[in-house]
Amino acid sequence: MTYKAIKLIKRPQTTITPDVFEVMEMETPTLGEGQILVRQTHMSLDPAMRGWMNEDRNSYIPPVELGDVMRSNGVGEVVESQNEKFPVGTRVAGLIGWTEYLATSGAGLNPVPPEIDPEAILAVLSLPGITAYHGLMEVARPKAGETVLVTGAAGSVGSIVGQIAKAEGLRVIGVAGSDEKCKWLTDELGFDAVINYKTADLDTALTQAAPDGIDVFFENTGGPIQHVAINHMNPHGRVAICGMIADYNRTTAMPGPSWILLLKRRLRVEGFTMPDERHRWGELSQKVGAYLMAGQIKYRTHVLEGLESAIDGINLLFSGENRGKLMVKL
Amino acid sequence: MTYKAIKLIKRPQTTITPDVFEVMEMETPTLGEGQILVRQTHMSLDPAMRGWMNEDRNSYIPPVELGDVMRSNGVGEVVESQNEKFPVGTRVAGLIGWTEYLATSGAGLNPVPPEIDPEAILAVLSLPGITAYHGLMEVARPKAGETVLVTGAAGSVGSIVGQIAKAEGLRVIGVAGSDEKCKWLTDELGFDAVINYKTADLDTALTQAAPDGIDVFFENTGGPIQHVAINHMNPHGRVAICGMIADYNRTTAMPGPSWILLLKRRLRVEGFTMPDERHRWGELSQKVGAYLMAGQIKYRTHVLEGLESAIDGINLLFSGENRGKLMVKL
Repeated sequence: MTYKAIKLIKRPQTTITPDVFEVMEMETPTLGEGQILVRQTHMSLDPAMRGWMNEDRNSYIPPVELGDVMRSNGVGEVVESQNEKFPVGTRVAGLIGWTEYLATSGAGLNPVPPEIDPEAILAVLSLPGITAYHGLMEVARPKAGETVLVTGAAGSVGSIVGQIAKAEGLRVIGVAGSDEKCKWLTDELGFDAVINYKTADLDTALTQAAPDGIDVFFENTGGPIQHVAINHMNPHGRVAICGMIADYNRTTAMPGPSWILLLKRRLRVEGFTMPDERHRWGELSQKVGAYLMAGQIKYRTHVLEGLESAIDGINLLFSGENRGKLMVKL
Repeated sequence: MTYKAIKLIKRPQTTITPDVFEVMEMETPTLGEGQILVRQTHMSLDPAMRGWMNEDRNSYIPPVELGDVMRSNGVGEVVESQNEKFPVGTRVAGLIGWTEYLATSGAGLNPVPPEIDPEAILAVLSLPGITAYHGLMEVARPKAGETVLVTGAAGSVGSIVGQIAKAEGLRVIGVAGSDEKCKWLTDELGFDAVINYKTADLDTALTQAAPDGIDVFFENTGGPIQHVAINHMNPHGRVAICGMIADYNRTTAMPGPSWILLLKRRLRVEGFTMPDERHRWGELSQKVGAYLMAGQIKYRTHVLEGLESAIDGINLLFSGENRGKLMVKL
């Protein structure tokens, strides 16, 4: 049987262009002992992928090697099995990559209950949810009565950060890039205030939205809001740096805020990434699941159709045109 | 009896110029109930004073008001007393200010044992030592086998940071601004490596001094070394921002390092100031005292003579011309 997979064959300079990928027609292999064949049904597209495409061996995870299938998280179904841990019909989630089928020992894949919607797995219970929970609750560590600012607030991580913060009784301000997204955050997700960074005067808007200042800044985007937000932080405020999507396609990094302010206000600024917490993903997923079960997390998905739709579709993340967690249905 | 005091009458724009001060001839007051008269013998000059002179009500401590005696830490002797907690002859340390005499209730002053050299009190057991201990051991929190980089390493705080780090078995690299200072750090204080930031190629020098990277960066200075140092930090490294002396006389702050690197390397960058720890100064001073008693902390002092020598003398801190803890003997 033949199937398609997409390899990374060039490193993008700035924006991701179609020529960095190659679509391959492959033959499904005969399984070896202990192997399973997984048919991927849902494939996640995430901003972090941009970093994995760079030749950067000093980052938190090795780059995707040229000639390898592009790395991604996904949900699939076991369609052939030589491994009794994964009988045919098992639903699994984990690093599957940009491919319709994967022959594997099952390492790094976890079985998931069939009653959970695969879209919820990718949108909440996988990286977006555990990243939001860990960054907010374990890195920033908000205290009762505090105000949280989250950038990329309509994004897959940011929207969950805000909802967990609301569930924890905090005041939440979201920054997003369209009025439609802002309306969704206040009307559907219960954010206390929102700022459209494309149209607002950021300093004025932050003064209005957070008259008592910001205690926790959950940073997903970088860009001008970073420098304005830091000026609004209260003494002993904390910044959890989760992403810098505005910077991923730049060749030179934007400077950060002066450390003078970090000193005067005694701020803590901390970067975190989820591979460091790999041994705790199951535990973290359960914690996020509890909010989901309690009806405290809503999500929306932006679903593309067919493997090759990923090639152009991934750029929706960087233009901000996706509405909801971006994924490909295969 | 008349005495001299120096008031702040203007805010410096950049560099501190003599016209921001006014020398006053005052009459010692008749003491009220519970008051004491302190004759200051040793007055500390510290980089943080530059910040206190700015009209900045968002900093960690209120500014010195125009018309008030300039704020400073010092050691003195009680020469008259209406307060049985402080009999005549008691040696005290605390915020005395730029003055020969101070009439006070004693609030904020602490008795110090007569057998301790007043220079050691200002150079080690007061702010320099407790700042070094708190920033290194409680903010940065080094682990066994790690490498510590300290800027302003020959300064009053930096030299103690390096010596505490050595006492704790860490590898220590110091950055200073003259060959003489660098020689003192290696030959007298036992630093493992030093960099003269005025003559070295910083990146090459750091590669040589820290081939395995930096785990803890104790930042006293700001300036170009900050951006180079951050590039040499290991994953999960920590930065304790204690001072930014290179920035204090600037009207606009230097940008900081991009947060992209903080994300990729999962770094923690944290500013701290000692007024936040005021309730623990006694405890911290004891901890520093233990290293001093064990012979693990050496210090040198740069002593000016007479109250008015502070007016020009304070600038030695910003030109880096002082050799050792700067203080005025009255």
